[in-house]
Amino acid sequence: MRTYKLTISYDGTRYQGWQRQGNTENTIQGILEDAVLKVTGYRAEVNGSGRTDAGVHARGQTASIVLPGKIGEDDFTAKINDRLPPDIRLLQTELVKNGFHARKSAVGKVYEYCIDTGEKPDVFTRRFCYHFPHVLDLDAMRKAAGYLTGTHEYAGYTDKKDEKSTQRTIYDIMISGQGRRVVIEYDGTGFLYHMVRILTGTLLEVGSGQRKPEEAAEALRTKDRLQAGFLAPARGLFLREVRYQ
Amino acid sequence: MRTYKLTISYDGTRYQGWQRQGNTENTIQGILEDAVLKVTGYRAEVNGSGRTDAGVHARGQTASIVLPGKIGEDDFTAKINDRLPPDIRLLQTELVKNGFHARKSAVGKVYEYCIDTGEKPDVFTRRFCYHFPHVLDLDAMRKAAGYLTGTHEYAGYTDKKDEKSTQRTIYDIMISGQGRRVVIEYDGTGFLYHMVRILTGTLLEVGSGQRKPEEAAEALRTKDRLQAGFLAPARGLFLREVRYQ
Repeated sequence: MRTYKLTISYDGTRYQGWQRQGNTENTIQGILEDAVLKVTGYRAEVNGSGRTDAGVHARGQTASIVLPGKIGEDDFTAKINDRLPPDIRLLQTELVKNGFHARKSAVGKVYEYCIDTGEKPDVFTRRFCYHFPHVLDLDAMRKAAGYLTGTHEYAGYTDKKDEKSTQRTIYDIMISGQGRRVVIEYDGTGFLYHMVRILTGTLLEVGSGQRKPEEAAEALRTKDRLQAGFLAPARGLFLREVRYQ
Repeated sequence: MRTYKLTISYDGTRYQGWQRQGNTENTIQGILEDAVLKVTGYRAEVNGSGRTDAGVHARGQTASIVLPGKIGEDDFTAKINDRLPPDIRLLQTELVKNGFHARKSAVGKVYEYCIDTGEKPDVFTRRFCYHFPHVLDLDAMRKAAGYLTGTHEYAGYTDKKDEKSTQRTIYDIMISGQGRRVVIEYDGTGFLYHMVRILTGTLLEVGSGQRKPEEAAEALRTKDRLQAGFLAPARGLFLREVRYQ
């Protein structure tokens, strides 16, 4: 048995998210597993680094797969891509040590969230940016982001109530603006269910003056979801990179 | 009667181009005219600065329209957008002098063409960039572009055989590369049928070493379409701006 690491990019617009669900063919995992079956004759599980929600995109999602025999990595990559729809691409296949697991071996993740602040939505980025037509105070957002980085209990920043542990570390939240477009980048050990989107909603409420920067800390302290901001839509969110040691 | 100038942006991916064709509802002009009818009760012709081909995009297409009465420009813009699909946006409506005509009054146009040179197509730009997986020699392309700028007979760079005049002036062709993405910008008085796409195909053949820079001049001299390069696909082309005095 050999273990391979896959790096995958997808436009999540028309999918029900990463995770295979029964017979639906509208999930990234389901489509990848079908392609692997067709190419290798083997029904292998494609284990992602994590589930992305419906509509969320990935530039560098990772997955691990265990196959019974040796494959030519580049040849396998090309053959899988021939079977995939154009909005899902396998970027790389690498032989890794047995025991590698895309989720369990991961030590960090980087997400980015794109906001279109123009008065009217840009027709070219509408699938990949959330249209939020407000003048954003980036300095206020950066101040709020300062409270949100570090090691904290993020129970107020998730929509899942029964997480075993809500402690995570965010190394950095970088906010950059270029013209009408604002991008927020999150670099951390890992993120809870909906966490990046709630962080983004909170920062957008701060940026548009609906909330003070200090309130971002308040939602951390009280662990109360109602103290945090709205759930920013899936379309602006990208899983950019999964880090391993 | 009052004349208005409209500025329009569209993702051309799913349309049969600008020009209304009988009953089809798959043209930008047809959809705009229907929206104007619904909003004003008046069936007015929306005269574009030029036809864009099927699949070509626009950041700033312009059109003129003559309406019997006065309208509130911002209100009209908002109401039209309510009637338009999300891949077509009316950016601006301006009252202009009677006699203004989007095509006849235009003095220049700027187009841009986007090329994705990555090994595998980027899933996020695939609708707006042509995937041409070659290492491009930008200096050779700039040399070829030098021959193509100026005032010339561009009969070798069009697919329409019966143009009244094939003389045009290209002020500038700018080629810029950032990572895997190469953008070619064309600034000129106007462009013949397929001209920007044939210029692009020619420059890509130069950039990928299939053709010498000097051959770009040869196709100008001989006026022979067969001496010019391939027709680059519509998906990478954007009408960026139409200039008026």
